[in-house]
Amino acid sequence: MGKLEDIVSLCKRRGFIFQGSEVYGGMAGTWDYGPLGVELKRRIMDTWWKYFVENRDDMYGVDAAIIMNPRVWQASGHTATFADPLVECKECKNRFRADKIAEGVGEGVTSEEFWNLHVKCPVCGKENWGPIRKFNMMFSTHVGAVLPEDVSENPELAERGVAYLRPETAQGIFTNYKNVVDTVYPDMPFGIAQQGKAFRNEISPRDFILRDRECSQMEIEYFVTPETWEENFDKMLALQHDFLENLMGLPAEAIHELDVPEADRAHYSKRTIDLMFDYPNGTEELMGLAYRTDFDLTNIQRESGKNMEYRDKKTGEAFIPHVIEPSIGVERLFLAVMSAAYSEDEVGGSSRVVLKLPERLAPYRFCVSPLLKNKPELVEKAREVYKILREKYGNVTWDDSGNIGKRYRKQDEIGTPKCVVVDFDTLADDTVTVRDRDTTEQVRIAIAKL
Amino acid sequence: MGKLEDIVSLCKRRGFIFQGSEVYGGMAGTWDYGPLGVELKRRIMDTWWKYFVENRDDMYGVDAAIIMNPRVWQASGHTATFADPLVECKECKNRFRADKIAEGVGEGVTSEEFWNLHVKCPVCGKENWGPIRKFNMMFSTHVGAVLPEDVSENPELAERGVAYLRPETAQGIFTNYKNVVDTVYPDMPFGIAQQGKAFRNEISPRDFILRDRECSQMEIEYFVTPETWEENFDKMLALQHDFLENLMGLPAEAIHELDVPEADRAHYSKRTIDLMFDYPNGTEELMGLAYRTDFDLTNIQRESGKNMEYRDKKTGEAFIPHVIEPSIGVERLFLAVMSAAYSEDEVGGSSRVVLKLPERLAPYRFCVSPLLKNKPELVEKAREVYKILREKYGNVTWDDSGNIGKRYRKQDEIGTPKCVVVDFDTLADDTVTVRDRDTTEQVRIAIAKL
Repeated sequence: MGKLEDIVSLCKRRGFIFQGSEVYGGMAGTWDYGPLGVELKRRIMDTWWKYFVENRDDMYGVDAAIIMNPRVWQASGHTATFADPLVECKECKNRFRADKIAEGVGEGVTSEEFWNLHVKCPVCGKENWGPIRKFNMMFSTHVGAVLPEDVSENPELAERGVAYLRPETAQGIFTNYKNVVDTVYPDMPFGIAQQGKAFRNEISPRDFILRDRECSQMEIEYFVTPETWEENFDKMLALQHDFLENLMGLPAEAIHELDVPEADRAHYSKRTIDLMFDYPNGTEELMGLAYRTDFDLTNIQRESGKNMEYRDKKTGEAFIPHVIEPSIGVERLFLAVMSAAYSEDEVGGSSRVVLKLPERLAPYRFCVSPLLKNKPELVEKAREVYKILREKYGNVTWDDSGNIGKRYRKQDEIGTPKCVVVDFDTLADDTVTVRDRDTTEQVRIAIAKL
Repeated sequence: MGKLEDIVSLCKRRGFIFQGSEVYGGMAGTWDYGPLGVELKRRIMDTWWKYFVENRDDMYGVDAAIIMNPRVWQASGHTATFADPLVECKECKNRFRADKIAEGVGEGVTSEEFWNLHVKCPVCGKENWGPIRKFNMMFSTHVGAVLPEDVSENPELAERGVAYLRPETAQGIFTNYKNVVDTVYPDMPFGIAQQGKAFRNEISPRDFILRDRECSQMEIEYFVTPETWEENFDKMLALQHDFLENLMGLPAEAIHELDVPEADRAHYSKRTIDLMFDYPNGTEELMGLAYRTDFDLTNIQRESGKNMEYRDKKTGEAFIPHVIEPSIGVERLFLAVMSAAYSEDEVGGSSRVVLKLPERLAPYRFCVSPLLKNKPELVEKAREVYKILREKYGNVTWDDSGNIGKRYRKQDEIGTPKCVVVDFDTLADDTVTVRDRDTTEQVRIAIAKL
């Protein structure tokens, strides 16, 4: 595992991740994925979808809009409580998240508690704080035809059509629960899964992609009978470990279960296990698994007046299902995958950076090269091999730049598992050199057997 | 091709598309994809990505943030000109897009022109109009820690941190052009592709998913030398036809090229061809192909002060590339695919609805059933077959509800190409009945040959 700055540097140098709107000096808390990053991100998200949705009988996907009816956030409690404690330094006017600049305090810290800690301002070093205020992290916008001049004339119009960018994908699942039940008639237990963007107006975005303002989530709401929540919780937990360790290539010893104590859990959760990962800069939450009881469906039933009960097909019994929710942020997983894959070693006396990505996640599975760029017969043969592999595997890259050593170095850095080199022997016997990324071993293989 | 209301009804009934936030009475202009819709949408988007990005040497993907630095929209002209003509009925206070309720006027219609047409209000029937005003369609939001009470005290703060939800994905490509050039060193011509959400605050969202407030776009900016734009434009146009007709299954005769005359083109475009599609409710734009000259990169160079030139690897010549842009909305394509696939015919004297989706797009490729649900030996054997097919193809569904005729009817409606039925003969000779969706013909096939 590398240091965070090495990974950030590799991400930028090789086109995995760029700062958002970088050409204009950036946009704090946003990140853009480059050619290699978008391929890695796609593979992470596709692997998750196949594992949790397509390959299972009990899972159904949805893809809900980002802008939802504001009553969604009334019912879910986000309008009232999705807020961070904000504090302003009266000297330099900078604003901070109080629980991030004071050690050992939680999100519910009061002004007095904070003042008593005598924290110094991280920017100007003074100690002159305003009161703690609650800052709601939902981004708001206006839907519908209200013009700025209307609002100048009539300030009340500023409230008309207010809507929010969803701060989580979960509510897009809960609000569609009834639609899914009524169209696919699932047996209990069953899950509804969603991948998509969520937005949080973080007071101080930081730690690269770990705490950004715009993230992609992968969430499942798994609906169970109230009596079976514990066994389903355990099953779902085991699936997460399997996915993270065996498909994403994260080492089991870098993943730790944190059984969140009652005081730190969301008020609706009867049990939450956070899976913590040893990131380069410390151990941080990678994902959460929460037992949400029937909190959400009950809220929706009350707020909408519509019946959210599930009727058992055999017994006819009607009840509001309870919910197990595994929730993972794509960016957190992306950084975990990069961190686990990043390594430096020595090859033939010189050091190299190598990204030991699982083959299923590598942006390219093969790189095909002619040994020499200026020999048309080699280039032509290499193109043939390239075409064969691309038709078979899709994600194959071509590299004829620089010398062969430089190409290997570059492919190691971007995590390409195998480099295939066409040389003069290939023209004679239709074999190629295949060089392994992790061992750097080279073997001769017949083209037909690739 | 069906009527629009038949397709909307099928979408709702079978779980393709639901109204956004339906449980709370909806959210105008938003739509949620259900279990089948999300699978169809994923397949449409994946097929596009494979065809235009993965299977080509000259294309690179990006995935940029939705919230970008506001200077992006200054440079692109969206802040000043991305606006629709809004008109208010002074009687009933309803607001409309002037160019949509008056026949034959364009987006630049003036108040006098509009008044002279003596349009009646579509809601109250009166004729008492206010002036035409420009309504900018970008959704705005605030980024950073400004609280509502700050704004009450100091109204100027309302402007601090204003940002927009991107109204198109194209600018996320242009702003990353330099990053891509500097990390992957592409040869000319090359393209950068992006899939993602875009947002437009439509005054009157309508026509199902055709004019929604939140859509998914698939765009490519293809960078060429100024001399070669015409040949590249023609090549790109041919690719669009190939993709739409051969991969998406749209009939060639339903696609029409509209060579947009200069007066109707965006001011930066020297040539635009819209591909129009015969939708159930009339012919509408499906996608656009525009020659955007060097308009965008030149604007970014001016606004950012950074050099946007590409340096030719052989000649060393530096120039700002010109751009060909194919741009397609996923929702428009989704509705075109559904419209082309939807048909009604008669089978054995009774009418049926059948969705003749191309096999690569069908949410499920196979449906596996036991002939009878209450015969454990049939169910067990069918489960075996189901497992084999699922491991081979992934997207396979199981159906043991109702009788076999009802199951066929349902699978026809959701576009499953083949139904595989396990009966008593299967137990004897390991063959199954395979029933074809389009012809309804049934053949016996050995399980091993599926």
